[in-house]
Amino acid sequence: MIPRLFVVDDLEPGRRVALDGDRTHYIKNVMRRSLGDEVGLFNGRDGEWLGRVHSLGRNTAEIALDMQRRPQAASPDLWLAFAPVKRARTDFIAEKATELGVSLLWPVMTRRAEPARVNVERLTNIAIEAAEQTERLDVPVVRNALQLEKMLQEWPRERTLFVCAEAGAALPIADAVLAHRGRPAGFLIGPEGGFAASELDALRKLPFVVAVGLGPRLLRAETAAVVALACWQALAGDGAGADSRPPFRNEFVS
Amino acid sequence: MIPRLFVVDDLEPGRRVALDGDRTHYIKNVMRRSLGDEVGLFNGRDGEWLGRVHSLGRNTAEIALDMQRRPQAASPDLWLAFAPVKRARTDFIAEKATELGVSLLWPVMTRRAEPARVNVERLTNIAIEAAEQTERLDVPVVRNALQLEKMLQEWPRERTLFVCAEAGAALPIADAVLAHRGRPAGFLIGPEGGFAASELDALRKLPFVVAVGLGPRLLRAETAAVVALACWQALAGDGAGADSRPPFRNEFVS
Repeated sequence: MIPRLFVVDDLEPGRRVALDGDRTHYIKNVMRRSLGDEVGLFNGRDGEWLGRVHSLGRNTAEIALDMQRRPQAASPDLWLAFAPVKRARTDFIAEKATELGVSLLWPVMTRRAEPARVNVERLTNIAIEAAEQTERLDVPVVRNALQLEKMLQEWPRERTLFVCAEAGAALPIADAVLAHRGRPAGFLIGPEGGFAASELDALRKLPFVVAVGLGPRLLRAETAAVVALACWQALAGDGAGADSRPPFRNEFVS
Repeated sequence: MIPRLFVVDDLEPGRRVALDGDRTHYIKNVMRRSLGDEVGLFNGRDGEWLGRVHSLGRNTAEIALDMQRRPQAASPDLWLAFAPVKRARTDFIAEKATELGVSLLWPVMTRRAEPARVNVERLTNIAIEAAEQTERLDVPVVRNALQLEKMLQEWPRERTLFVCAEAGAALPIADAVLAHRGRPAGFLIGPEGGFAASELDALRKLPFVVAVGLGPRLLRAETAAVVALACWQALAGDGAGADSRPPFRNEFVS
């Protein structure tokens, strides 16, 4: 397995890319790579590049780029807005949403959201690590937290907002996703304890909102996020095509 | 919110059910309930019952049953076989699979599975807690771990085994689930590092196996489990019906 790292540098033939301390530690001590070993790099713009460890110091390393391995490809246009929950579970939402291909993560303060400050940098770092692991070519943007009312004012009118509503009328998720296929989409996941009734009422009145149900069991907030994103990708996203498979895997099968 | 507890006792009118130390602690110190307060009980056979706290001691409490609140309903016939990963992530699989309504959890030792002993009692307790939380009326059975070959010998021939295969030919999950709808089903999730090529080859030769793909990103084992189960429930399980909503929720909405 070739270790993959996200960097901010431009990627082009012959270039040498310096790694920061964390990534140097990862290459050297976690993955136990030495001079000349292969490393993959991506920056969200130039595709995935193969390079080799050119120098390996205590706190820094240089990767000399060889060639592009994959061209840049856009992730599906899928957003996730979510009410912060307890920290470990919020971290989990950021990690899993990145694995599931969202392009934007948006913390939203609802009535019952955990009031703790949302650390955008922390969530971004979690998203970067998950993107490295999951073989994406980009990293989702993490927005600053907004109050629900503000977030709804800023929500693009042409983007369907699927609200995962545990109470009241709602379409089954599969029906809702199929009915709105082919359009930019996003999900809104409430906090533990759910939306307040007045919040759900206000949401339902908006023309771009579609209330969806995730089945008869009450799901934790972070489970609801994964379920919703998984169903969207499988039915309307990049999991729906017959050729939709992780890269470079077939070489491992006889 | 009425606290819900799983008990092994029969549930019937007029009966008093004694709670163990952990559940007494939960009722008294976590949920801060007192004498006369309402508690819900279920045992996987007799539906959900409402009762009231009849006595509340240091290490034990009694619930006096009033009436059945919901009749027993079967969970969908969905199994999950999974290769153990690191402990926290194995715990996570048990929790989330229970939220997603599986009836059976089956740890399976594959070539690259974490070799640590699987603690069936620990996983059962996690499943019970998740079932209490998620408002199920039953708790999934946790089987003893088996080697993959043994497990495949014991797998019922009429039950579709969807193998989440990151390498080689596979149907997109939505297509596979829809094509096999209406039959008993189960998923097999490999370990971190995936199945060995020989394991995948052997699996693909079995008539009840259907290889499924979960899209173009490489998912962690526990993410793959949630994605697979979520898609099945949404397309072939109890998330597919228009009336498929959590119980007792509409009263909260104006």
